[in-house]
Amino acid sequence: MARTATGESSLARAVRILDCFTPEEPALPVSVIARRAGLHVATASRLVAELVGQGLLARGPDRAVRIGMRMWELASRASPTLSLREAAMPFLEDLHAVVGHHAQLGIRDGDEVLFLERLTARDAVVNFSRIAGRLPLHVTSSGLVLLAYGDDDLQQRVLSRPLARYTERTIATAARLRTAMAEVRRQGFALLPGHVHEEATGIAVPVRDALGEVVAGLSVIVPNDGRAAANVPVLLAAARGLSRTLARTSGDL
Amino acid sequence: MARTATGESSLARAVRILDCFTPEEPALPVSVIARRAGLHVATASRLVAELVGQGLLARGPDRAVRIGMRMWELASRASPTLSLREAAMPFLEDLHAVVGHHAQLGIRDGDEVLFLERLTARDAVVNFSRIAGRLPLHVTSSGLVLLAYGDDDLQQRVLSRPLARYTERTIATAARLRTAMAEVRRQGFALLPGHVHEEATGIAVPVRDALGEVVAGLSVIVPNDGRAAANVPVLLAAARGLSRTLARTSGDL
Repeated sequence: MARTATGESSLARAVRILDCFTPEEPALPVSVIARRAGLHVATASRLVAELVGQGLLARGPDRAVRIGMRMWELASRASPTLSLREAAMPFLEDLHAVVGHHAQLGIRDGDEVLFLERLTARDAVVNFSRIAGRLPLHVTSSGLVLLAYGDDDLQQRVLSRPLARYTERTIATAARLRTAMAEVRRQGFALLPGHVHEEATGIAVPVRDALGEVVAGLSVIVPNDGRAAANVPVLLAAARGLSRTLARTSGDL
Repeated sequence: MARTATGESSLARAVRILDCFTPEEPALPVSVIARRAGLHVATASRLVAELVGQGLLARGPDRAVRIGMRMWELASRASPTLSLREAAMPFLEDLHAVVGHHAQLGIRDGDEVLFLERLTARDAVVNFSRIAGRLPLHVTSSGLVLLAYGDDDLQQRVLSRPLARYTERTIATAARLRTAMAEVRRQGFALLPGHVHEEATGIAVPVRDALGEVVAGLSVIVPNDGRAAANVPVLLAAARGLSRTLARTSGDL
């Protein structure tokens, strides 16, 4: 690929442009894209025009630019997590029907939990997660599950770094995190009242694949009213069902 | 962007590479990618390496290449259809719970219906649609709804071309298509028994936005047993609820 004087390829710059968009700001003018991506306006305009030509971006009636349908299609049609998500969907629906509020599925990507799916009731408690959104592993219940069953390298890396604090309750020291991980492995679930937001409790359980490896965290977010633990059995049952489905269909994954 | 002797940009070639992957073949060796994308193996290798570097592709343990998590994340985080899909999800869940089989949401993209979401029961009837999959407008119930309420240009374009036939029942002549569109507008729904597959019936209704424009088709796929029409009222009710939600939240869309 063509490289600038700094050695950066045009593909790298295209990705920086795609990275400017968020759920809060799905449409942006080219001038804002240029600033955020750290590109000259002329360079950004040219790249945006090319991305629009390929359908990876689309221009609205107001000339603002957004992610294009073709981008979503290319990413979703053969998504690496499509089979996991499709296998999980009936269990997420059941969880959501029984528990209400939010039912979600997260996987580990790097040192964060990446949410593949979230079902939300209209009057549900506050929740910071989003589909295709990320949160640090130590903060959320599903992240803590993925960390507790993760490999040594991952655990050491997370334990050796400063831990971001979201509320008074967030686990923010290595000592507390070590204890919490041990407790998750002993109990088989993570229950974190008020760790991401004062008003919400996250509860997560591990989902295992055919080989018994933990591949995802299944979680619900409910009000922080001291009654969250009542949801542990239904979560555990759903995770077992999903793990069994994954084991059965592992040839297709 | 850099262009080859043929004037094609590296971004265009990168998109051709991303386009090689399908739900049936989510992982491919570089040699197959090169052949499908019409590129020299050396060129394909270099582009694949760069796409892997950016996280848009990922390499498996067997060196086969697949769509990367980062690609899915960039596309989904600010997806142009995220709000429509999120608004539709509770209604799709209810439909799926009541009707069983498949409940799905499709939008028009070009002259095809693109399926944004599909909820499927384990023992459901055969269904050719897929999430992020496409089918021609005239073949499927949701496509026919989007066509019947589409603009003149679209209708003329589709009517003037050969119409692909999937089964004996598929609408394959302009005259029949014209009649079918008029019937959809008169009835307010499309019911197509055996048009995509002998054993399945698709039933779809229009979803309108705040301005009353038809923006999506909400559909269920059920067995072709002569009893499909019983699902029309629940579909119509779900589409009304979804349209009302869209009107209420149109400021955020």
